[in-house]
Amino acid sequence: MTKLKVFLPINPQRGDIPDHFEAFQKFQKEFDVIIRPMSSDLEEWKTALAGELSDISAIWITNVVFTLAGEFNSLIDFFPPSLRVIAVPWVGHDRFDGVRLREKGIVLCNVGDSSAKDVADIALYLALGTFRYTSYFDKAFRENKCDITATRRVIGGTDYHSETKQPLVSNDPARLNWAKYMTVGGKSMDSPSGKIAGIVGLGAIGKEIALRLWALGMKIVYTKRTPLSEEEVKALPYEPVYYSSFEEMVPHVDLLALAVPNTPQTENLINENTIKLFKKGSRIVNIGRGNAIDEEVLLKALDDGTLNSVGLDVFRNEPKVDKRFADRFDVVLAPHLGSFTMDNFRGAAERTIENIRNVIVDDGPGICPVN
Amino acid sequence: MTKLKVFLPINPQRGDIPDHFEAFQKFQKEFDVIIRPMSSDLEEWKTALAGELSDISAIWITNVVFTLAGEFNSLIDFFPPSLRVIAVPWVGHDRFDGVRLREKGIVLCNVGDSSAKDVADIALYLALGTFRYTSYFDKAFRENKCDITATRRVIGGTDYHSETKQPLVSNDPARLNWAKYMTVGGKSMDSPSGKIAGIVGLGAIGKEIALRLWALGMKIVYTKRTPLSEEEVKALPYEPVYYSSFEEMVPHVDLLALAVPNTPQTENLINENTIKLFKKGSRIVNIGRGNAIDEEVLLKALDDGTLNSVGLDVFRNEPKVDKRFADRFDVVLAPHLGSFTMDNFRGAAERTIENIRNVIVDDGPGICPVN
Repeated sequence: MTKLKVFLPINPQRGDIPDHFEAFQKFQKEFDVIIRPMSSDLEEWKTALAGELSDISAIWITNVVFTLAGEFNSLIDFFPPSLRVIAVPWVGHDRFDGVRLREKGIVLCNVGDSSAKDVADIALYLALGTFRYTSYFDKAFRENKCDITATRRVIGGTDYHSETKQPLVSNDPARLNWAKYMTVGGKSMDSPSGKIAGIVGLGAIGKEIALRLWALGMKIVYTKRTPLSEEEVKALPYEPVYYSSFEEMVPHVDLLALAVPNTPQTENLINENTIKLFKKGSRIVNIGRGNAIDEEVLLKALDDGTLNSVGLDVFRNEPKVDKRFADRFDVVLAPHLGSFTMDNFRGAAERTIENIRNVIVDDGPGICPVN
Repeated sequence: MTKLKVFLPINPQRGDIPDHFEAFQKFQKEFDVIIRPMSSDLEEWKTALAGELSDISAIWITNVVFTLAGEFNSLIDFFPPSLRVIAVPWVGHDRFDGVRLREKGIVLCNVGDSSAKDVADIALYLALGTFRYTSYFDKAFRENKCDITATRRVIGGTDYHSETKQPLVSNDPARLNWAKYMTVGGKSMDSPSGKIAGIVGLGAIGKEIALRLWALGMKIVYTKRTPLSEEEVKALPYEPVYYSSFEEMVPHVDLLALAVPNTPQTENLINENTIKLFKKGSRIVNIGRGNAIDEEVLLKALDDGTLNSVGLDVFRNEPKVDKRFADRFDVVLAPHLGSFTMDNFRGAAERTIENIRNVIVDDGPGICPVN
C-alpha cells in the first residue's frame, strides 16, 4: 500500500523541520513526508501542485508562508482534490482563508491551546513589568555598571524627559521620601496584589493568564461572548466576575490583558473612545494580535497618564514596529516570542501530527479545526 | 497624661516618613513622635540619647542607619532604660544585634511577611526571565529600534561572545531551524511548565514564590530545617516535596529559588562544591541576601553551562555590584527592589505601628519580634 503524502514546504534559508522529535520520526515512517524547499515565487508552487504534489493529502505549514511574494490564499484554487487538511503548527491562522478552504472540503487546523502556558508566561512577565518597571530597571542597572545607588536615583521622580522618554531625577529633596513616593518618572510602582485584572477572551490562553494573575493576588474579571458555564467556573481556583461587554468591564480594571485573535471585532479594541473608559493609571498587556490596539492612542495615553505602563509582545506593523516604543521607560517589550520555547515546538509538532492523522487516516474533523 | 515617645531618626537628605498614610497620622496623635534629622556622626546620637531622647519608648528605624559612620550596634549601650522596642519597617534585620538588644530587654521587630507578595513577584519576574531570556530580548529589541526580524536573528545560536557576553548569530544555516533550535547564545529557551522548582526557605516569602511557580505549572520541592506540618501542606493548592538538606534537593531542581535571610548557615550556599550538584542547564534566582552566593562560582557556572541563566535582585557587595553582571545576556537583574511598591510601604508602616503599639501600649511581645 502506498503511503499517504504530506507536503512540508520549507524556506530554503530556514527550514523549520522538527525532525529531532521522536514523534516526527515516526510520522515520517507512517507517511510519505515530502520536505521540499520552496521559493517565494507562487508560480513554482502552482507548477508543483499540478505536478508532483497533485496527490498530497496534507500540507504542513512552516515559516515559508511568510516569504511568499503574494497571498498564500491565491494558491487555494490550485490545490489538488486529494488535499484534505492544512495544518498550521502554531496558533494564529488569520493569514489563511478558512472559509474558502472549507468550501473546497479542506480542514484548516492550528495547535489549539498547546502554546497556552508559554504565551501566558509572557503575558505574566509583561504584567509584572508594567507594575514594577523591572524592564526599565534592568536596563538602567546595566547602564549604571551595576551601581545600585545610581540606578535608584530616579525613585520618587515626578516626571520623565519629553524627548528621551526616560525618567528624571527629582530636584525636590522631599521627593526622596521613599516611604511616600514610590514613583519612577511620575508613575507609581504598584503591587498587583488586591487589584483587578480584566481578561479579554477567557479561552485557553486567557485562563492560563488569569491563573497566573490570580496567583499574584489579583481579582479576575473577564468579558467573552458567552460567560463560562458553572462547571467551567468550578474548575477554576478563583471565581471570575463576568461582564457582557468590553466597555462595561474596562472602567473596573487596573490591568487589562488582551488575549484575542485577529478578527474584525477585535480590530482597534483600544481606540480613542475606549481609552477614555480606563481608570487613570491603568495598565495594558497584549499577547494576542497587534491590531487590537490603535498604537497612536496607546502612546498618547501613556503620555497623558491614562496608562501607567503597557507590555507588548505583539504589534500592529510586525516585523517593523513603531520605533517610538523603543525609548519609553514605561513600556515592556518582547519581539513576539510568546510561544518561543523548546517545549512549545515539541508540543506544536505533536499536535500538528495529531491533526493531520485525525483527518487523513481517521476521517475525523481534525483535533483543532479552525474553519 | 504625657504621651509615650517614639523616636523616628531621619536622614537629612532623605527622610522616609510615611506621613501620607492615615494610620501614621493617627499614630502621630497617639504618641509623641519625634521626627529628627540625624547626622552620620555617632557622637551626635549618643548625646541626644543621653539628653532629649532619654525617655523614648521606641525607635522607628529608617534608611538613616545606612548612613552611619560606624555600627548602629555600638549605640546599644547608650540606649535609655525606657527604650522597649526597635521597629524595622522592612524585612532584613541582620544589621541589628538582636541578642544584645534582648539582653537589654529591647524587642527587635521587623515587618514579618508584609512584603512577601511583592518580593515573590520579583522572584517570579526573575524566574520567567531565566527561562525565556526576556531581559535580553527587551534590551536587544530596543537597540534594534523595534525591528523584530533583526532581534530574532540570534535565535538558534550556539554561542556567545567571550568578551561582550552577548549571544552570537549562528553561521550554520541549519541552526535557523526554529522547530529544533530554540536557543540563544547556545542556551535553551525553556518552558517552566512541568519542570521542578526548589525553594530554599519555605517561609512566608518562599510560600508566595512557590504559589507563583506552581501557577506556571512547576512542581514544587523545598528544603527547610523542619518540614511543613500536615495542616500547612493542606492549606496549599499543591503538594510540595520535602528534602531534609540543600545538598539532597539540588540535583533534582531545574530552578532554584533562594529566599533565605543572612545567617552563617546561608553564607555561600552556592559555592564551588554545591554548584557541582546542579543539573546541567539549571537556573537560580536570588531575592534573599546576596552573600548566599559565591559570585565567582556563579559567573563560572554560567560560562561552563552548569547554569543556563540566573536572576538576581540581591548581591554580595551592595550598593556597588560586580560589574561583570551588567554585560551578560544570561542574567536578569534588578537593583534590589523586591519590596519597592507603594502598597508595600503602606503595609510596612502599618505593621511598624502595630509592632510599636503592641510592645509599649499592650505590653505584648511585638507582632513580628525577631530577637
